[in-house]
Amino acid sequence: MQALKDRIIKEGKNLGGGILKVDSFINHQVDPALMDACGREFARRFNKIGATRILTAEISGIAPAIMTARHMNLPVVYARKTKPITMPDQVYLTVAPSHTKGRLVELIISPEYLAHGERVLIIDDFLASGATILGLVRLSQAAGATVVGIGTLIEKSFEGGREALDHLKLPVESLVCITSMDNGEIVFSK
Amino acid sequence: MQALKDRIIKEGKNLGGGILKVDSFINHQVDPALMDACGREFARRFNKIGATRILTAEISGIAPAIMTARHMNLPVVYARKTKPITMPDQVYLTVAPSHTKGRLVELIISPEYLAHGERVLIIDDFLASGATILGLVRLSQAAGATVVGIGTLIEKSFEGGREALDHLKLPVESLVCITSMDNGEIVFSK
Repeated sequence: MQALKDRIIKEGKNLGGGILKVDSFINHQVDPALMDACGREFARRFNKIGATRILTAEISGIAPAIMTARHMNLPVVYARKTKPITMPDQVYLTVAPSHTKGRLVELIISPEYLAHGERVLIIDDFLASGATILGLVRLSQAAGATVVGIGTLIEKSFEGGREALDHLKLPVESLVCITSMDNGEIVFSK
Repeated sequence: MQALKDRIIKEGKNLGGGILKVDSFINHQVDPALMDACGREFARRFNKIGATRILTAEISGIAPAIMTARHMNLPVVYARKTKPITMPDQVYLTVAPSHTKGRLVELIISPEYLAHGERVLIIDDFLASGATILGLVRLSQAAGATVVGIGTLIEKSFEGGREALDHLKLPVESLVCITSMDNGEIVFSK
């Protein structure tokens, strides 16, 4: 998606170690018009998969997921990383290693909002190692729901996430794909 | 705002201790159409204050803030509660007591995205004690920005937030106001 790629070229920063800083339009400051356009594009790409619910992980998945949900007219659920007091005692919980946090994080969903038979579209900001997305897949499976598609704003293909998701045999769509961040560069494949 | 009030009547749960559970449409599962309507309503109410930026706090402020930002065509910044590795060493940081977490939480903004002279509209999900919003006001003041308005989805007037914000002499808009949650009830004033 050219608008997202252009914005990464203009404002994205390669901080080294595979870390792409996009804090000026996705991860701290958010450009709502760009997120809306990304949501529209996900809706277009996933309009035939019969999704009944969108699933993401707090925090940075919320903006693209809610915009996608708006265009697809679906509810969105974001997995919590700490259990709020409003959540029942019995929850779906898994752990996933966080690349940017350098530790394991919990992903928690209330059974109230992810039911048996749901068809889940997972939306997140990054596809890096795929660990967070695989965590969301495990939560969906625990609930008896079926994941029917995976969409991410930015894929870092050199971190192997697509291969990690390969066994799921699902449509995996990234709006922009970065193949290398070596030597301070940001190299795109699309 | 009637649509939000109707939804609270239908799905909101009084958990006692002043805790209103709205996890089915705001705080865990999100209804994007309802959030979009709330964003449109905030945009209507604040269309004359000359805001240049919307400020909220992660996590549950993000959905209403991004929808408001979309309707006002403004960037939105969400204060982080933990400092990500992409953030510079020098930040604006304050602490605020969290009612639902029962402890102090940090609110952190990068100086990159909140500059001197900005006119800030603060949007959040709840106006309870006002502590989080006062934290966002302090961060804005530290940055040399001016807060020009405050909007929240749900005010719990019995927790005193409006009085705590009174000295700011700012427009404070809540879309729904709850005056009492005693005896398991949810009593609305509007």
